[in-house]
This record gives sequence, C-alpha cells and structure tokens, in this order.
Amino acid sequence: MAAHYTESAAKVVEPPSKIKRKAPGSGQVKRSVRRLESKAKVDGSAEYIYNLSLPGMLYGKIARSSIPHGKILSIDATAALAIEGVHAVITGEDIRRLIPDPYYGPAFHDQPILALDKVRYAGEPVAVVLAADPHVAEEAADLIAVEYDPLEPVFDEVAASKAGAPIIHDRLRPAATFPDLKYLQGRSGTNVALSGRVRRGDLEKGFRESDHIFEHTFRNGKVIHAPLEPFVTLAEMNGPDGLTIHTASQSPSFVRSEVSRLLGWPENRVRVRTAFLGGGFGGKLYIKLEALVAACALLVRKPVRIALTMEEQFYTITKHGATVRLKTGAKKDGRIVAREVETWWNGGAYADIGPRVAQKSGLTSAGPYDIENIAIDSHAIYTNEPPAGALRGFGVSQVVWAYESQADIIARALKIDPLEFRRRNILREGRPHATGMLMTDVDIDAILDRLAERMEWDRPLDHGSGTIRRGRGIAIGIKACVAPTTSVAMVNIYGDGSCGICCSTVDMGQGSDTAMAQIAGELLGVSAEAIRVIHPDTDVTPYDMATLGSRSTYHMGNAVRHAAEDARAQLLRIAATALQTDIDELECRDGAVLTRSGARMSRQITPFWMLGGAGAEIEVDTETGRIRVTKLVNVGDAGSAINPDIVERQLIGAGTMQFGFTIFEEMIINEGQVVNASFADYKIPGMLDLPDDLTGELVEVPHRHGPFGAKGIGETGMFCVSPAIGNALYDAIEVRVMEMPLTPERVLRALRQAQDRPLTSD
Amino acid sequence: MAAHYTESAAKVVEPPSKIKRKAPGSGQVKRSVRRLESKAKVDGSAEYIYNLSLPGMLYGKIARSSIPHGKILSIDATAALAIEGVHAVITGEDIRRLIPDPYYGPAFHDQPILALDKVRYAGEPVAVVLAADPHVAEEAADLIAVEYDPLEPVFDEVAASKAGAPIIHDRLRPAATFPDLKYLQGRSGTNVALSGRVRRGDLEKGFRESDHIFEHTFRNGKVIHAPLEPFVTLAEMNGPDGLTIHTASQSPSFVRSEVSRLLGWPENRVRVRTAFLGGGFGGKLYIKLEALVAACALLVRKPVRIALTMEEQFYTITKHGATVRLKTGAKKDGRIVAREVETWWNGGAYADIGPRVAQKSGLTSAGPYDIENIAIDSHAIYTNEPPAGALRGFGVSQVVWAYESQADIIARALKIDPLEFRRRNILREGRPHATGMLMTDVDIDAILDRLAERMEWDRPLDHGSGTIRRGRGIAIGIKACVAPTTSVAMVNIYGDGSCGICCSTVDMGQGSDTAMAQIAGELLGVSAEAIRVIHPDTDVTPYDMATLGSRSTYHMGNAVRHAAEDARAQLLRIAATALQTDIDELECRDGAVLTRSGARMSRQITPFWMLGGAGAEIEVDTETGRIRVTKLVNVGDAGSAINPDIVERQLIGAGTMQFGFTIFEEMIINEGQVVNASFADYKIPGMLDLPDDLTGELVEVPHRHGPFGAKGIGETGMFCVSPAIGNALYDAIEVRVMEMPLTPERVLRALRQAQDRPLTSD
Repeated sequence: MAAHYTESAAKVVEPPSKIKRKAPGSGQVKRSVRRLESKAKVDGSAEYIYNLSLPGMLYGKIARSSIPHGKILSIDATAALAIEGVHAVITGEDIRRLIPDPYYGPAFHDQPILALDKVRYAGEPVAVVLAADPHVAEEAADLIAVEYDPLEPVFDEVAASKAGAPIIHDRLRPAATFPDLKYLQGRSGTNVALSGRVRRGDLEKGFRESDHIFEHTFRNGKVIHAPLEPFVTLAEMNGPDGLTIHTASQSPSFVRSEVSRLLGWPENRVRVRTAFLGGGFGGKLYIKLEALVAACALLVRKPVRIALTMEEQFYTITKHGATVRLKTGAKKDGRIVAREVETWWNGGAYADIGPRVAQKSGLTSAGPYDIENIAIDSHAIYTNEPPAGALRGFGVSQVVWAYESQADIIARALKIDPLEFRRRNILREGRPHATGMLMTDVDIDAILDRLAERMEWDRPLDHGSGTIRRGRGIAIGIKACVAPTTSVAMVNIYGDGSCGICCSTVDMGQGSDTAMAQIAGELLGVSAEAIRVIHPDTDVTPYDMATLGSRSTYHMGNAVRHAAEDARAQLLRIAATALQTDIDELECRDGAVLTRSGARMSRQITPFWMLGGAGAEIEVDTETGRIRVTKLVNVGDAGSAINPDIVERQLIGAGTMQFGFTIFEEMIINEGQVVNASFADYKIPGMLDLPDDLTGELVEVPHRHGPFGAKGIGETGMFCVSPAIGNALYDAIEVRVMEMPLTPERVLRALRQAQDRPLTSD
Repeated sequence: MAAHYTESAAKVVEPPSKIKRKAPGSGQVKRSVRRLESKAKVDGSAEYIYNLSLPGMLYGKIARSSIPHGKILSIDATAALAIEGVHAVITGEDIRRLIPDPYYGPAFHDQPILALDKVRYAGEPVAVVLAADPHVAEEAADLIAVEYDPLEPVFDEVAASKAGAPIIHDRLRPAATFPDLKYLQGRSGTNVALSGRVRRGDLEKGFRESDHIFEHTFRNGKVIHAPLEPFVTLAEMNGPDGLTIHTASQSPSFVRSEVSRLLGWPENRVRVRTAFLGGGFGGKLYIKLEALVAACALLVRKPVRIALTMEEQFYTITKHGATVRLKTGAKKDGRIVAREVETWWNGGAYADIGPRVAQKSGLTSAGPYDIENIAIDSHAIYTNEPPAGALRGFGVSQVVWAYESQADIIARALKIDPLEFRRRNILREGRPHATGMLMTDVDIDAILDRLAERMEWDRPLDHGSGTIRRGRGIAIGIKACVAPTTSVAMVNIYGDGSCGICCSTVDMGQGSDTAMAQIAGELLGVSAEAIRVIHPDTDVTPYDMATLGSRSTYHMGNAVRHAAEDARAQLLRIAATALQTDIDELECRDGAVLTRSGARMSRQITPFWMLGGAGAEIEVDTETGRIRVTKLVNVGDAGSAINPDIVERQLIGAGTMQFGFTIFEEMIINEGQVVNASFADYKIPGMLDLPDDLTGELVEVPHRHGPFGAKGIGETGMFCVSPAIGNALYDAIEVRVMEMPLTPERVLRALRQAQDRPLTSD
C-alpha cells in the first residue's frame, strides 16, 4: 500500500518554471549512484542511536544468569544497592507489577522481559541496575546474588527433540498475530516449538525408482551477527501517558505494536524511532532490549539507556545451529527423483522468530531442483542455549550447506561434472517448486553460466602436490521471500519542488535510502542525491513490516514507486492547471493510489525467488588442515538492479560474512556456557583473511512486478559460499567435512580418517 | 487537501472484533470534551520548546540598537570577546557571508537577520554573542559598542505617510510568493508599503442623499501579544548539509520555506519542529528568531539557542497602532447610506505581515452594515518603531473600535436606541458586502438578540450619581477569513485500531488538538481522548499555511474530516473483506481523497464570515477617571461548535485580552524608545481586574461547508469589546474618548473638556 500527498497547489503554481520536470526514465535507476549518506558517515554527522544522550537519563546494566537451566530461589540486591549512585535494581517481579504478563516474542510469547521463576540459558537477563554513571551500574550488577535450584539442561537440538528430554517451557504460547500457529496453543511436554512439513509426489515410489540413494547428515554450529554498532535502546516518557523508544532496531513498527501489547496501551501512545544502524543482519529484529528499557523507564519515570557490550551480544541472539539429514534418490544420469529432508533447528531457550525460520527455510530445503517426490520436515527446537533468530538468509544457508554438499557428493559418485549435474536438475521457468508454486522470473541457467565463466570451469585446476593442495567447488541456492507482507511509503513534494520520502525501512548499511531515492527520483525526474529519505519514526512514517529477508527493495521499493507515480500524476495535474493545458487529457483525479504490496500474492509462498550461486578455489595445508580461499565468486540474481554497485557490494559483503561462518566463526557453548564470547576468541574475518580474488557477480533476470524489475539481493550472497568451499575442499584433498565451520582441526581429523586413501590429484 | 493512509490489512483482519466500530455520529463533536493535553499540562510533562536543551549548545544573547534610525559606522566587539567563555560574536556582516541577501519577511523581504548598514528602530538586533553560559553571553552583549550616524526618525503613522517624511527603506521589496504585490517592486521614496482600496456605489451621491454626516478620527496605541512562553528557537545541524530548527512558532511550514529561501537550500534539507506553544496570538508567526538562530548555528557549526526576555518581546513584534478616519452619511431614520474609511497602520520599521493586515482588515472596515456607497483606503506605513504584525483579529479590532464607537455616536445623535440602530443597518443573509461578496451562513440578528438578552437591554440601567457613574454599551463586528489557503492532514489508523492525526496546526492553548481529535473521532467512532495528535514536524507532518486568523477549525478541520472520512471508508472496505460482505456495495477504491481546502473559494474574500458582538456595563469614578467593567458579554458565531466549552472559553479569553487592550495596555514609545518594556510598567489584566460578570456566548449558525458546520472563533471575541466599553463610557458620563486605551488620564481629560456640560443620567 502506498499513499502520499503533495501540497500547496498555490505554492507550486506561481513559478511555473519549477514544475517543469524531466519525463520518467531520467536515468536514476540502474545506475550506481553514490550512497546518499556517504558524506555524513565520513564526517561523523550520521545519526546513530548509540550516540544519543537524553537529559537526566540513567544507564542500565544487566545482571545475567550463571547457569543454563534452573529455578530462581532468590535474588539479593543488597550489596548492589549499597553502592553509592545506584538508583534502582529492577527484577522480573518488578516488571510483573507493571506488566502482569511480561512475555514477548514475534512468534511465541515465551520470553520474559527479565527472568521469572526460572532461567533457561546461561546469560539470560535476571536483573537490571540503574545508575546515572554507567560504571557504577556495571560494578553494582556484578554484586547481585542469585540463588538457583539447578535443573537438568539440554543443548543438542536433536536430543532436545526426543521424548524424555528435559522440558524447557511448560506450555507453548504462540502469538495471536500468527493465526496459523494457533493449533500449538497450550501444547505441553515438548521442546518442539513447531514442525514444518512439505510433501510432493510419492517419496517411497521415488526412492524405489532410484538407481542410487545417498543419505548424509550435515551440521552447522551457532554463530552471531556481530554488527559493529552494539545493541542499544533508550526510552523516555512522552507526556503523562506516552512513551518514546529510541532504538537500533530493524523493525520499529513491530517494536511499537509489541511494546503496546505488553503494556496494554493503544499503539498511538508508543512512539519508536530509529536512525542509521551500524549493521543488523537480522539480529536487531523484533524485541531485543526495547521491552526491558521501556519497562525500566516507566518504573523509575526517568529516561533509561541500555547498550550491550560485544560479549552480551552472544547472550542475546544467534544464528541457528542446525542438523540436516538429507536422503536423495537419483537416476544413473544424475536426475534426482526423490529427496527427503529433515532439519532440527537449535532455537535456544526462546523462540524469537525461530519457528518461522524453520518453517520458511524448510520450504526451499530441497534446493533449486526439479524433483518429483519430496518430503520435508523442519523442526524448531528449544534448547538451553542462547536464543537463535533470523540471520541474513533466514535459515537458507544452513540447508544449502547440506544439499549443495550432497550435490557434489552425488555428482562425484556418479562421475558427472558438478556443474553439469546441476544443469540436469535445476528448476526452470514455469516448472513447479516442491511447494507447487510455479517458478517465474527466474533463470538458474544464467547463474550457472556466470559461475562457469567466472570460475573458468573448463580450465583444469592445478591441484598441487606436497602439503599444500588446491581445490575448487561450486554451489547454488534458492530462497523464498516473506509473503504476505505490508510496506507503506509516502513521497512528499514540498513547496519548492524538493522531495522527501517517508518510509519505515531502516538503512543499516545496505543502501536502502539510496535505492528508495533512486526509485522516486526516476519517476519524478529528480536526481536521487536531491531526495531526502526520512528515517523511521512510528508516529509519522508509515507502517512497514520490518527490514529483513531482502524484502525492502521489492516491497518498499514498490510502495515508493506507486507513491512517486501518483505524486507525479498529481504534479502534472497541477502543472496542467497552471499552464492552462487540457486537464482531461491527463485523466488525473483528486486522489492518491494505495497499493497493498504483496497482497495479491497471498496464495504464493514468495513474491519473488532469490537465486544465487557461488564458486570457490582454495588451498589446503595438509599438515595443519588450514584452508585458504584464494578465489570466491558470488553470483546473485537482483532482477534489474536499481544500483548495480551497491548490489555487487551486497554480494561481496554477504560472501565475506558467510566466508567467516564457513571457515572459523563458531560460538563454543560448553554445558550451556558460551566460552568464547569476545572477538578475541570468536574470530570474524579481517582484511588479511579475505580471498585475494573476491567478486560479486550480478545476473539480471527482471521481475515483472518488481520496481523497475528489481528483486531483493541482501541475502542471496549468503546461500552458497559454504558448500562451494566445502566442495572445493573435497576437490583439493578428497575429504568431506559435514559440519561447519571448516576449522583446521576438523579438516585434519577428516584427513586422518581418510589417511589410508592415497591423495591423488583427481 | 487531505491525504491519509491506513495500514496492514492483515493486521486489521485477524481480530474482527477490533474493526467493529460505531457508525459516524458517535457524539464526539458538539460536546465539551476535556482538552487532550490537560493532564500533561498539569503534571508538567507537556513539551515546550523553551524547555529543550541540546547537547553542546551555545546560548545567544542579542545586542540591540540604542537609537531609532541611523547608519551603523562601526561595531566593536573587542570588550565582549575578551570575556572568558565567549565563543563568538556574530554581526550582520558575518551573516552576509553565509547568506548574501539576508532579508526576510512574509510580505516584503525587508528585514535583515541582523542590522546591516543602518538601524531602523531602537531595539533592533545588531549583534549576537554566543557562549556556553547564558550569563556570560548576556554580560558580553552589554559590552558591544556600536557607533551610529543618527538619521531623522518618524514615528507617527500619518506623518510618516506624508511627502517629505524621512524615508525608512530605500526601496520596496515585496515577496515573490505574493504575486499581487509585484507592482510595488522597487518603489522608492515612500513609507507607504501598501494601500488597500475598496469602492462600492457612488460615495459622493451617498453623502448628498444623507440627512446627517458624521466624521471622526479614532486611534489605537501599540500593544503586545504577551504570550507566557517567551520567544525561543534552537537550531542544530542535521548531518553535513541539513538543519533542524526547534521553535515556538505558529507557522512551521513558513519557517521551513523562508529559511530555505534565505540559505538557497531545497526545503527538504530544513526541518522545523514545534511543540505546544505557551500562547502565540499572532506574535509567533513567520520568522522571528528562526533565521538568526539558524544562521548562528551554521556559522559556528554547533547547536544554538536564543530565548527572548519579556522586555525583548517589545522589540520584536507588536500589534499595529492605527489611526482611523471615518465619515458616515445617514438618513434621519438611522439608515447608513454612505461611508468613507481611511486607516493608517503604524507598521514600524519592518513590514512583517502588516501590509496584509492593512489590506485584509480594510475589506471589512465599513462594518457589518448594509451600505450602498462605500470608499475604503487602508495604508500600511513604515515608521521607526518596533515592527507590527498579526495580533488576534488581524487589524479588525482597530477598525471595529472606530466604526462601533461612531455607531453609538450616530445612534445617540439621531435619538435611536443603539441596538435598534444596528438592527436597521446590519447585513443579512444573501446581501452584498462592501466587496460585492454575498453574505452566507450568517445571522447577525441572532447575535444582537443574544446581546440584548444577556445585557437585559430592556431594563433601564441605574447610571448612579456622585463620583461613581455607571454605563453600558454594545458593539458588533465582522471579519473575513484568510483565503485561498491550504491545509493538509493525515489520519492514521494503526494496526491495533488506535488512531493518530498528523497535521501542522500548532496547539498554542486554543484547543486545536482536541478539536481535531473530536472531528476524526466522530467519523471513526473513536472517543476523542483515545486519539493522538502528532505535533508539527515539517519532515513528516503535512503542509499547513499557519495557525492564524481563526482558520484552523475550518480549514484544518475540513482536512481532518476528509482524511477521516476516507480512512473510515477504507476501514469499512477492509472489514467487508474480512467479514465476507459485499464489497461492491461499499463502493470503495484503493485510493485516498485529496481536498484542496479553500481552493474552490478563491474568488471570494472569505470562506466564512466571523461575526461577533459585545456588551459591557461599567462604573466610572469621575474623580479619578478610572473605569471598572462590571459586566462583559462576548457573543460569537462559531457555526456549529465542535467543542462548546472550548469555544466559550475562546470568547472569554479573547474578551479578556481585548479588555486589557481597551483599559490599560499600551506600549509607550518616546522618540522611538520603548519606555515601559516590562510587565511592571506594561500592565496586562490580572484576576482582580476582570469583570465580575464575564461570559462568552455562543451563537450557532451552521456553515454549509464547515466541518460539522463549524466556523473559526479564535478572533471573534476580540472585535467588539473596546467599542462596547467606549460606548458604555459615554452612557455613563457622556464623554467620548476616541483613542485607546481608555486610561484614567484620558477619561479625566475628556471629562474636564466636557465640564461645562452638566452630568445627567440620560
């Protein structure tokens, strides 16, 4: 839905020169406009919530659970309160006096604002100390003494799904906003929050008709989002019965509705503002600190700020660890005829959006392949680890790791070139996907072609000899976009002809401000640089579901397009009046267009398909097991790119992120305790780690309904990097590592297991 | 023009109970809803810009001209800069480096941000000292030494209009936004900024046919607006090339466009925010501190705040002093057949909106009377006094003072009861006004009836004897509303059904938030108290011309009405889908209604007429000349009142304000120096001064195009109080004072001039 207004006919009318504009098609889209905020980010004037200070505010420091599972017997804040300068200590019981049912979450209302009665993971917030001096708050938080009665914990997602496992939540509490989850309401005695299921054809028949059956289990560890701007929220009273929340959030509209629901207030009494985000990657979605900070501010009736350290991020939200069992039946010629996929998602102690991750990524977990017989089961599992949620790709990279590793296994087993194996199996335009939805606006062949070209696939690779071996691998992947979903935009033309866009898309570095300005500018004949994009403020910028899942360019882009088209039509009408031309000719009304973006697609699983491929060349040191990626090619279909440079950098950025996840990033959780919660111990890629040859490659298959043919691209680069590297590893040293990340230890261990086999250069 | 959006069909759809709403006509309008902000104003949480503090901000203190007219020879800031803590001293030349042509104004671009080359009134801003400590800034401002070459000044508006008077501006510079003033461009050698002119019938013939001719000259002194919240503006950079202005302004949209024009920036780089205003009364319109504070912030690249003292308000903006010459020809039976009006408006050194005051109030300066032959001339005059602008009534109370005093004179001369005299002359529905526009939606008889009833006009008054004499008087008046004009509103329905209104109307105590909430609530079936009105922020709230001239209830009220009607239609459509009723029946489209409020009235002088009447009973002490008003009745036509209590209090508030102007308020300017610039010396009404019997009386003549029949009422109570009191004075002691205010000195002087005549009780 797109609405907009223009204003003051009188003001536009008087200088007719101002209303002469270039016709649409003014070269704003499909052009690498420099990011609008470049200068502000360089000179330090770009607004980040982290830098915000409110007069008289208190700093909050969270005291956290030391055990992974247990009943809270007592919380003793005496020593903390004795520290001079401590304003208050807030516990879950204090919160409960303000909010009788203080459980939140986008999919399930399962997460208490502060722990109540029991704790479910080590690092869970138990109390908050408030002080005018942040150092005082930190010192006092260490002195809060909590007595627990430990309960047996469970950490492994498969173990937690079995009967007899310790139960983490007494009852399931799906959110009322998701009516499809209502059947789970009140279910007890299980850690399975949700099981998604897809069936197509006749699986047993498919396996019977197969010449070869392959069955493997693949695993991913937990990793974190690691945005450079920490999690931060400030809250303050807004009049006697209002609340303003300033937060580094990807989903201001959700924060408003969820905090309103918790407080029992109408939404119009809660205002949520965001600014630029120093990265989000799905970590800053839904409620993180917002409910806690809001409750503290209301309890003490003063502004409150809580910002997390990098360590605390590990206790806040992670990417899902996952176990994927994959059974595939293939004909001799490589044609896949049956596939069974079962995935267990380690959701940690609270659901966050995990059940949706399980459900949605489950839909495409059979891969971008044309398979007649499919069975998919995808389980969201509670464990006593920190909560897992959305992370760039929304569960897709975990399943691509599995099916693209297996694709390589099958191809090699059947002695088919891995590229050719994929060509024989891919879904093509018009063919039904596992879910029955037809493939449209896609061209996977183009992605394979580009991969082959950029990887010089026809050129034999020198695999080396001695202790340094080389290999290469490729992978492709598919993701569906969230639907149905709503984005609303306003395009304002001010009295002097300058232009502003109001939308609640959060620019967290992905360049959305620039893309929206380009789309509006294209239609209004104004350069993108001259357009101002106003940042989310739920009081005034219209509703947007959230900035997630590569949806903004498509959904918000379309909303901006419709609003700009309508603004343009109105402008022409005003011009016709001013210039005394025939108004009837223009067929304009005193009206504005509203478009419910995506509404028409409600019976489809996705408004557009996200397709990508990756290729990698690596060197492996057989003495240490260390992998060095020498070339990484990430190919993605952005439809017609609004801004090609930004799109290519998105692919490179996502590739770099997933490269880290593949090679070394892993949260190490020992008996529920995160043991490497620092960037000294949890390694993210540095400049020297990056492949020398690292590229993002654009494939443009225009989408008929996308704004100027565009599709979302933010996640596509995440899908295929891991299996491409895994496949390159096999190519180099003929060992297969089924579990990510591909650390030297794992590589070496796999190599030793295969030591009886001689190393050949294939 | 009204635009709006609703959002997220999906969210509204799921709980159908939420979308069941009462039908329109839910009793929100025509009901005295308590002001929405009552609680916030009582508990101190209501936001005022005066209370805003920005991190790292500097305080500015203005150094002002000590002489009324002269060339600036030099400005020496050495001593000021020597004070520790002074960050900078800014002069007009510094401003000129940033803004080559730093002259601003709504009607004429004549006012420099800081004096350049010459000063034109005593108290004109000459320099600004900036310091982190406001006391340091104040101390340093006193040390700025300016050397002048004095020029001959002129203060009286009639004298200044004559040939040979000292010329204050070399050339007239009308604003391009008013094309009708273009003919004045470059005119030189005159202090007459504009002369408005109305002609009807044949004046000379009218006078020839008259039995009696009356000619008098009436005068008003200068008074001030005296809002309790001082003038205050803060400005800060918004990124590398943007500016945010927080200001106590009645016209945020104008501030944006005018500051943008001065800087040569597109409007989308300037953001203007307001909050609640602690009173405005027309004083906080257009540019006051905003351009100066914005320039200072850009020059020093730090946030800057300037707030004026009450004394400085006297040097900033005043109500027009005026001289009104009135020549009226009447038949024996009291029927007025010819009227000539000539008014000289003392506009002070800068035009502000004065030329429009002269022009617009000139249109109705022949009064609400049905007169065939009329000539009106209304001159806006530059003098060397502080600038005069809009003050509640926009020039109407000055001319009503004249024509209603004369009405009493004529009635008494012809021995006609003053009420009856007016009945014989008033304009009735369908009759042409002096301008030719037909009277519609009016009923002046109803006002006279109410006056007669509340004043118990049939009951003979005991005029007393001895030194305390009593009298009573009545008056009626008329005003036209600004047209054409634009207001835009958005009505947002949030996901939970709660509602917010975005509009740029400024709530300065007149209750506009409440009225807008009532109008939207009426249509949406929501109680007004549950609706949130979001305060002006030009980045996001739509354009509004300004909050002035009693226009908001009518113009913005209509914009809110249209937006709410449309939101309601959409809501019903969504409900129809959700409830599976027939959508065609509702005839709703995916569109929003835009309404250019007032556009259709462009050939009329007013969208609605403002009509009021007042009656007063007074006691006069013949020994001291002191007037005590014992009863004051203020009658106004609000159309169908949206909120009767607020309307009545508007009438009482305006009556109280005008009562002060009538009895004691007067700026005393001696040789261009304001000598009573403090509330110790410039008396405003206190509780003990008020009439014991003080009422606002509502007459409801519904307007066919008003929102629910409403008209504006904010100014109507200003018109008639002065002549009613003046007429009561004559009634009490048979002396006529032609010049306001009716101070004891003037009353006593008039009494002594009449001392040969015996005092009778009529």
